[in-house]
Amino acid sequence: MSEIANRIFEESLGRVVLVELKGGRTVRGKLYSFDQHMNLVLEDAEDITIPSEARKIGMVVVRGDNVVLVSPPPKRQ
Amino acid sequence: MSEIANRIFEESLGRVVLVELKGGRTVRGKLYSFDQHMNLVLEDAEDITIPSEARKIGMVVVRGDNVVLVSPPPKRQ
Amino acid sequence: MSEIANRIFEESLGRVVLVELKGGRTVRGKLYSFDQHMNLVLEDAEDITIPSEARKIGMVVVRGDNVVLVSPPPKRQ
Amino acid sequence: MSEIANRIFEESLGRVVLVELKGGRTVRGKLYSFDQHMNLVLEDAEDITIPSEARKIGMVVVRGDNVVLVSPPPKRQ
Amino acid sequence: MSEIANRIFEESLGRVVLVELKGGRTVRGKLYSFDQHMNLVLEDAEDITIPSEARKIGMVVVRGDNVVLVSPPPKRQ
Amino acid sequence: MSEIANRIFEESLGRVVLVELKGGRTVRGKLYSFDQHMNLVLEDAEDITIPSEARKIGMVVVRGDNVVLVSPPPKRQ
Amino acid sequence: MSEIANRIFEESLGRVVLVELKGGRTVRGKLYSFDQHMNLVLEDAEDITIPSEARKIGMVVVRGDNVVLVSPPPKRQ
Repeated sequence: MSEIANRIFEESLGRVVLVELKGGRTVRGKLYSFDQHMNLVLEDAEDITIPSEARKIGMVVVRGDNVVLVSPPPKRQ
Repeated sequence: MSEIANRIFEESLGRVVLVELKGGRTVRGKLYSFDQHMNLVLEDAEDITIPSEARKIGMVVVRGDNVVLVSPPPKRQ
Repeated sequence: MSEIANRIFEESLGRVVLVELKGGRTVRGKLYSFDQHMNLVLEDAEDITIPSEARKIGMVVVRGDNVVLVSPPPKRQ
Repeated sequence: MSEIANRIFEESLGRVVLVELKGGRTVRGKLYSFDQHMNLVLEDAEDITIPSEARKIGMVVVRGDNVVLVSPPPKRQ
Repeated sequence: MSEIANRIFEESLGRVVLVELKGGRTVRGKLYSFDQHMNLVLEDAEDITIPSEARKIGMVVVRGDNVVLVSPPPKRQ
Repeated sequence: MSEIANRIFEESLGRVVLVELKGGRTVRGKLYSFDQHMNLVLEDAEDITIPSEARKIGMVVVRGDNVVLVSPPPKRQ
Repeated sequence: MSEIANRIFEESLGRVVLVELKGGRTVRGKLYSFDQHMNLVLEDAEDITIPSEARKIGMVVVRGDNVVLVSPPPKRQ
């Protein structure tokens, strides 16, 4: 991951990110940890694949090779 | 896996984790062992892909490349 | 594979294990050999994908990257 | 990535690129960062998989192994 | 591949093995050569995916990453 | 890539190649750059998956792992 | 690739081979070059996926990871 991507992940620690996984699944949660392979730990996560049926899934460790994209939170003003 | 992810797995040893696999399968069991590739050993595992039809599968070794995400148990209070 | 996973495989040598493969296939047989990639050799194996139509397939070498999970036999009492 | 591909990505920094992902998804956004694996950071990104239903997705980090192709912006005149 | 798997392949040289490939295809032929990635060379091979429609395919080189499992011939008595 | 494949790509620089991608997509464009992983840069590219609906896509960087095959232009006479 | 597989490819240079690709596609052509990953160059190739609709595709470079199996020509007598 580039240094800039790394910095974006670092700045997102403790804040809510959106994670899209292969196969169309979407998970949202507070970023607690990450590594260079995009293995992620999310706290207070929700499965929001079907937005109207958000489902709380607590803390999750996501294996990086399933990640398609990650949306960090909007920048602090 | 980050040190924090590693610590979460360590703290989950002997406790029940939920493991989602590629292809939509879900397994729950007591975490007995893990490694850096997320190869996992679960004890007293159940296949809960269809929650109403939980099926006991005993001890299982899960090959890490099938893992999508792992939910550790809620933190001890 | 963790040392514990390795030990579980070693203790399963000569005993019947259940192996689930990618694509929904299930094979059962006596574990004859394994390596760190979960390449497995099974003796007296049966394809039990459709349990009611078990099919003897003799000795098989399974390429590890197809393995989803392995159930070792219950512990000796 | 070849030096020329690298240069094309560098020249695209701060400009809008189109990114096609495995599974038929298309995302457009300002290229903010990239690395040799085509891990990309896009700003002001939009999901334009269905062009008539463009959906703003803000900043996104795209994991490179999902990328099929990237269209840089037309060259500056 | 474990030494035992290697030995099984060596003992199968010149004898008929059954090879199951990803995607449900099955090929049978005399094992002529193999390597550690399970790249295989089969002689006098037949595609027996549909057993009643066996189709001779002569000599084939199979790329190892397509192999699911290999059945060696029954042991010599 | 073999030296011969490398030479074929070199001789194709600046000339129109046809690139077939995984998933049935076909792209045609002037080869501008390539590397050993078959990461390609095409200029004046067209998506010709549906030949009767060719669609201009300008310059594209194709990630090599999506490439199935590349047809270089016919040899210069 | 084993030395024997390598020799088979070498002996097939300049002769017609049949190449089956992932996804059910079949290509036939004169083997012009190959490497250890089974990246292949075929001359005077034809797409014979639908045998009754053979389609000339000229020279093609096939990326090795798409190859399922290769049939060399029958041995010279």
